[in-house]
Amino acid sequence: MLVVGNEILSGKVEEANLAVLARELRRLGILLKRVVIVMDEVDAIAHEVRELSATHDWVFTSGGVGPTHDDVTIEGVAKAFGVRVVSSPEMEGMLRAHYGERCTEGHLRMALVPEGSALEVSAEVTWPTIRHGNTWLLPGIPEVFRMKLPVVVARIGGAGTASAFVSHAVYMKMDEGLLKPLLDRVVAAFADVSVGSYPKWLDPAYKTKVTFDGRDEARVLAARDAFVAMLPAGEPQRTE
Amino acid sequence: MLVVGNEILSGKVEEANLAVLARELRRLGILLKRVVIVMDEVDAIAHEVRELSATHDWVFTSGGVGPTHDDVTIEGVAKAFGVRVVSSPEMEGMLRAHYGERCTEGHLRMALVPEGSALEVSAEVTWPTIRHGNTWLLPGIPEVFRMKLPVVVARIGGAGTASAFVSHAVYMKMDEGLLKPLLDRVVAAFADVSVGSYPKWLDPAYKTKVTFDGRDEARVLAARDAFVAMLPAGEPQRTE
Repeated sequence: MLVVGNEILSGKVEEANLAVLARELRRLGILLKRVVIVMDEVDAIAHEVRELSATHDWVFTSGGVGPTHDDVTIEGVAKAFGVRVVSSPEMEGMLRAHYGERCTEGHLRMALVPEGSALEVSAEVTWPTIRHGNTWLLPGIPEVFRMKLPVVVARIGGAGTASAFVSHAVYMKMDEGLLKPLLDRVVAAFADVSVGSYPKWLDPAYKTKVTFDGRDEARVLAARDAFVAMLPAGEPQRTE
Repeated sequence: MLVVGNEILSGKVEEANLAVLARELRRLGILLKRVVIVMDEVDAIAHEVRELSATHDWVFTSGGVGPTHDDVTIEGVAKAFGVRVVSSPEMEGMLRAHYGERCTEGHLRMALVPEGSALEVSAEVTWPTIRHGNTWLLPGIPEVFRMKLPVVVARIGGAGTASAFVSHAVYMKMDEGLLKPLLDRVVAAFADVSVGSYPKWLDPAYKTKVTFDGRDEARVLAARDAFVAMLPAGEPQRTE
């Protein structure tokens, strides 16, 4: 994922799309491996898109697709792939129909796409989502980002994709220092299950949450249960 | 900033330290240029730290500094700088004093640091914060991350740092398409002011927020006021 926006890096706006994309990809069995956040700079965007798209199956950009001077993601993606920015006749027609006589040059900038882009739509989301090869250009506004995700899912979540990740968890009052040898044993025994340990600060209900993640639910549950079986009396506080 | 953690990339935990660090750096006049989020993998961390520390004044890592198998930031940073992971006698002494007879090998892992690290403390935060050269190793737990920031600020915010960034904003009912020519004029006239335009979705109070940021408040205000003077009657809805 590539998040574009000075407003995120200045702390004026809290990033709100990463967790939503992450959870959606997880349901599709797709591992989100890397997120980069850069400023509104054509060269920075072009550099990242070139690198991410060459080394990952899919890339999702968030932000910088509006009509103003600080919206440079389309230019950055075009530069990454060595293509021109062109106006999509289809999108231009939709904008003219929508704005009618009030339509300005500014509005028509929203029809600009990297040359060679696919325009992805669904029955519900008729305003196109731009995709250039394996790179999806999504808007930064959280409400609109969420609206567009079903279009992405419909396109990339079809036949041949891996099974969804499942997750289970155990909550304990023991601290991580005490749990470490038990964790090491379950990690060694279940190489296909990803085990995470997360200390909680000042929570009366528990001190450590241990998570078990994988694509095979039987193995994930076996790892969780093997871990629980090693715990001393009085633990765990809760499992899920 | 380098955020480390499978839990962020899986959407199980929402990233909560970026905006806090960003705002603190802004008060110090330091521009946060780039954030990368990677999984709990030594090589991924080492690669990023090497690259970020070579190309930026300061690097801040968040997460992966606990004692369990999935805490690999210290190993990653050590690998980035080509040094060993060693136990700090000072931190080991503090851990032994704190845990007493209950102290385990697991607890003592929290004394591990990349060799050659500085241990930064303050009167209020006596548990050391690890810094290796220009790279600060901060914990991922949001409450602890916030506790440590004053130590960072005391060390890097001293004499010789640039002046703080200031920010002002204007809210309008006009959309970005209509505002674009006005924005272009103010951007061209105030090269030293960063102008951002942010559409709001379904907010009855305004449709577009335009922000003006820079180190020189007089110039920031001049840019804002020049922009407001170009607006038609009935705008703006509000300035700040």
